[in-house]
Amino acid sequence: MAKRTVYCGLIGEELVGQEIVLKGWVQRRRDLGGVIFIDLRDREGIAQVVFNAENLPAEQMEAADHLRSEFVVEVKGELVLRDEDQVNPKIPTGRYELMANNLVVLAKSQTPPIYVEDEIDTDEELRLRYRYLDLRRKPMFDNLRLRHTVVQTVRQYLNDTNFIDVETPSLTKSTPEGARDFLVPTRREAGKFYALPQSPQIFKQLLMGAGIDRYYQIVRCFRDEDLRGDRQPEFTQIDIETSFLEEEDIQAITEEMLKHVVKEARGLDLTEAFPSMTYEQAMSEYGSDKPDIRFDLKLIDLTDSVKGTDFGVFKGAIENGGQVKALNLKGLADEYTRKTADDLLNVVKPYGAKGLAWAKVTEDGFTGPIAKFFKEEAAYNSIAGPSQAEPGDILFFMADSAKVVADSLGELRNYLGKAHQLYNPEELAFVWITDWPLLEFDEEAGRYVAMHHPFTSPQNNDVAALKAEPAEALARAYDIVLNGYEIGGGSIRIHTREMQEEMFDLLGFTPQQAEEQFGFLMSAFDYGFPPHGGIALGLDRLVMILAGEPNIREVIAFPKTGRGIDPMTEAPSTVDRAQLKELNLTVRRLRESKEKK
Amino acid sequence: MAKRTVYCGLIGEELVGQEIVLKGWVQRRRDLGGVIFIDLRDREGIAQVVFNAENLPAEQMEAADHLRSEFVVEVKGELVLRDEDQVNPKIPTGRYELMANNLVVLAKSQTPPIYVEDEIDTDEELRLRYRYLDLRRKPMFDNLRLRHTVVQTVRQYLNDTNFIDVETPSLTKSTPEGARDFLVPTRREAGKFYALPQSPQIFKQLLMGAGIDRYYQIVRCFRDEDLRGDRQPEFTQIDIETSFLEEEDIQAITEEMLKHVVKEARGLDLTEAFPSMTYEQAMSEYGSDKPDIRFDLKLIDLTDSVKGTDFGVFKGAIENGGQVKALNLKGLADEYTRKTADDLLNVVKPYGAKGLAWAKVTEDGFTGPIAKFFKEEAAYNSIAGPSQAEPGDILFFMADSAKVVADSLGELRNYLGKAHQLYNPEELAFVWITDWPLLEFDEEAGRYVAMHHPFTSPQNNDVAALKAEPAEALARAYDIVLNGYEIGGGSIRIHTREMQEEMFDLLGFTPQQAEEQFGFLMSAFDYGFPPHGGIALGLDRLVMILAGEPNIREVIAFPKTGRGIDPMTEAPSTVDRAQLKELNLTVRRLRESKEKK
Repeated sequence: MAKRTVYCGLIGEELVGQEIVLKGWVQRRRDLGGVIFIDLRDREGIAQVVFNAENLPAEQMEAADHLRSEFVVEVKGELVLRDEDQVNPKIPTGRYELMANNLVVLAKSQTPPIYVEDEIDTDEELRLRYRYLDLRRKPMFDNLRLRHTVVQTVRQYLNDTNFIDVETPSLTKSTPEGARDFLVPTRREAGKFYALPQSPQIFKQLLMGAGIDRYYQIVRCFRDEDLRGDRQPEFTQIDIETSFLEEEDIQAITEEMLKHVVKEARGLDLTEAFPSMTYEQAMSEYGSDKPDIRFDLKLIDLTDSVKGTDFGVFKGAIENGGQVKALNLKGLADEYTRKTADDLLNVVKPYGAKGLAWAKVTEDGFTGPIAKFFKEEAAYNSIAGPSQAEPGDILFFMADSAKVVADSLGELRNYLGKAHQLYNPEELAFVWITDWPLLEFDEEAGRYVAMHHPFTSPQNNDVAALKAEPAEALARAYDIVLNGYEIGGGSIRIHTREMQEEMFDLLGFTPQQAEEQFGFLMSAFDYGFPPHGGIALGLDRLVMILAGEPNIREVIAFPKTGRGIDPMTEAPSTVDRAQLKELNLTVRRLRESKEKK
Repeated sequence: MAKRTVYCGLIGEELVGQEIVLKGWVQRRRDLGGVIFIDLRDREGIAQVVFNAENLPAEQMEAADHLRSEFVVEVKGELVLRDEDQVNPKIPTGRYELMANNLVVLAKSQTPPIYVEDEIDTDEELRLRYRYLDLRRKPMFDNLRLRHTVVQTVRQYLNDTNFIDVETPSLTKSTPEGARDFLVPTRREAGKFYALPQSPQIFKQLLMGAGIDRYYQIVRCFRDEDLRGDRQPEFTQIDIETSFLEEEDIQAITEEMLKHVVKEARGLDLTEAFPSMTYEQAMSEYGSDKPDIRFDLKLIDLTDSVKGTDFGVFKGAIENGGQVKALNLKGLADEYTRKTADDLLNVVKPYGAKGLAWAKVTEDGFTGPIAKFFKEEAAYNSIAGPSQAEPGDILFFMADSAKVVADSLGELRNYLGKAHQLYNPEELAFVWITDWPLLEFDEEAGRYVAMHHPFTSPQNNDVAALKAEPAEALARAYDIVLNGYEIGGGSIRIHTREMQEEMFDLLGFTPQQAEEQFGFLMSAFDYGFPPHGGIALGLDRLVMILAGEPNIREVIAFPKTGRGIDPMTEAPSTVDRAQLKELNLTVRRLRESKEKK
């Protein structure tokens, strides 16, 4: 083989008149009166190649004639400027063409089952089955390259700020807290299993105990959860831990790192500090702990102002200790008919909403189903005042428990923001969410569960206070949210045995269970363990947002489907009986079916 | 907490006279007539801190008095120059001390179970159980930092040369070829399993099919093998794949990358090209496919020259189609008595050697057990000529099958090289081993197995030739060896369905088995698959050698023991019955014990 001199997409002025060698895939072939043109594609772009009987031996001309889409070829020849009327201004290489004097067909191709075009309308399962073809498409390659850029930028920034990249194990110990573990049986002892890490949480804390001071890792993590659009059984985390730093230090490092990423990935200079709001404020004003602050449309609390109302729905909710809140979709009343406004109930129903009241604002007061209850000036003002209603607005109301109100209106807010393009989709709006509750009460389990994880420090570093009023405790935790997605979260950790034991006690561990599962961590606290904290960011989701993609599968080279399957390799698959025997395992199904016989 | 202004180990001239804040661990505490001195340690080094009643409130002086090893403290005060006679020239900060005016005890410590000193003589299991203490020791931190440097240098070099870092899955499909897989059961379908990747081999090849052109990844891999000193169940690989390049291109990239690594890790400029030798030459001259070329001591082939000998051992071996080879340990005859020379048999016995003949060279010919067979001048010269024997040399002979001769003398060569320090332990001697056999015949299995892996291309790209004489086929494979360790290996891959099918056929796969296991790869070959090849390097082993450590556990933060156990977390461990039930698995041991009842 001749050596490639340049990528197809990078040919330029300086090569004109030179003999060059290109290698790549045939994107398109045209025969114009015996002269054959191909668009030759590699990862950097497209170059036009011309095969002309004057320049090529007959058998190569014949081969050129037989070229088809996705054949892999090596071509040699002089790079020339195209005639003015042949210039294609749409592509960077559109002024040049290669006059081939040599052609080598490196690989042939059958007709590919999916088109290698920027825009395709192909079933995702088929794209995943032929992922190697799907990844040949420029938007997919651009996603992988963007991911590469993000990762390298993160590394560069952290390397430059004294962080040390330390690898932690993938074969770890199973712990009952958190999501479901993936297990890995060992053949060395029957009934024993490793677990794949849900995060390197404990190892990174132990690295602080080891004096590493500033740790990072871009690391594969695993959760055996039911998969949603933006979840995968394996995912990649930017994992950071530091000693001796406070919340604001860790947030500052993260913020600076993300600004570097945005600069490299998008060419944007984010100069302002990221805004910050408390969990309480986020829930109250946005109905979400991951608010999309690219647009306003805040939740307006009417609970106090409509207290005297006769409207049964509002009255009932308030009497039951609930809330009345509204969204004011300013100036868009005309976009809604009675039917389309009523239909928005479907958006909020999954969040427990039993109804969705709405009213349009006109010069003469409200119109719509609930208008009749707010005809009087005082009644009208009880809503119009706080919501700054003006003619042309449409208001949506939710009256229910605080949770249903927040969840429903939070979702409706996102829905309306998207439906009416209330934001610039190119904008990147980061926001910190702070002052999280430490615990939440799990009604089903009848006990507290950690809002972040059991290693998060309470703000009030007082064991007795925590024990006395666990529900009141706030956590030294912070989430970073981008465009309505939680892209990361972190905290200052507990670093004393006393507090950690109290925490496990609150979470319903017996002292024996706590010791059995996490004794090694609490032992470590006995030997001079520094105050420490960190953060973890979801790489897949971050890249997804930066790429403007709707789901993380578009930024993962070989993702799995919603059922955890790789349609290409057909993993997971059955294995040899001998393998299972070595692992001292029996598949229960087989046994049951035997029993039935 | 006050903010740290500088690491202990980095205080210097420019801070003298300033108030600074240090945070770290108490390495040592001395009370000199009511003035308390501590050595304060952080990851960058040691600083001396002085607590004097003149500068500190009484309760802080009291606290200083109670400081013990491994307490974590924050100290504030002025950095001053020590009196001339107090200067400690042994440490970089030995000219300074901090006159503390504030002390905060951040964490206390019990007496640690292992000393946090550079040199310790502690059982490795204890070191692993308290790994967070073990890693506080400077040599261990230095190892982790070295690893960080190596990884970042590799990334930098590859980023700068157009490689793209692409992540491949960890939950993959189990394949029967190669080492034993670690399996991960899925709860979604009884009897189905993912496998953890032994390497991303097929995925990186598919990325070439996807047009990525230059891929790399520093990636965790898994092999459920019996563990040796330099093996771990999980290990990290520098994984590289390229399209359209030939062996020498990939070797050149790898070589350049390694030179960058050596420069950054060791400060050494390796200017010469790495030497290269064929597999045949390595086996013949060094008795090893991973020769340590830091020293000469080559195997000398005497088979032809001693053909006429009366010495039965030589004669018998030659008559059986074997070889006679020798090592000439020049000038070191006096180091050996008859007993110590005879004792070297123990070195070679495990490799099948039935005896180890030796002879010292004197002015009067050979002495030693076999001297009597080589008294005549011609007989003497048949050995002394080829081995360039001179008085003072001692020769060791092996006469057996080619395999036993190579294995035994290869091992003896390494043993003698080490025993007599025939090399500079600081030297880094890289060598390429090329022209490997494609296949080797596995007597036990009664079939061929791939010497590298089933995706390696034969040198002669001719399916018919391969089918006709598989044993003769050489592979387009290359290993990179450093100081007698194989640190990496790679090859040009097969990229056509026809050749890959032939390969699987030779390896004993039925067409159905080949299709079931690797059908997706062979399908990919149908759609324009470029010629490609790459290499994979073992990061752990590379760092181990650069760190001068005897085993890879010293360069892994949380390694496992030889039995695959983490003594700290006690992984692997038993799991809840409910977890197994969800996975549709039964542990066989439990069932058997039931049956016994």
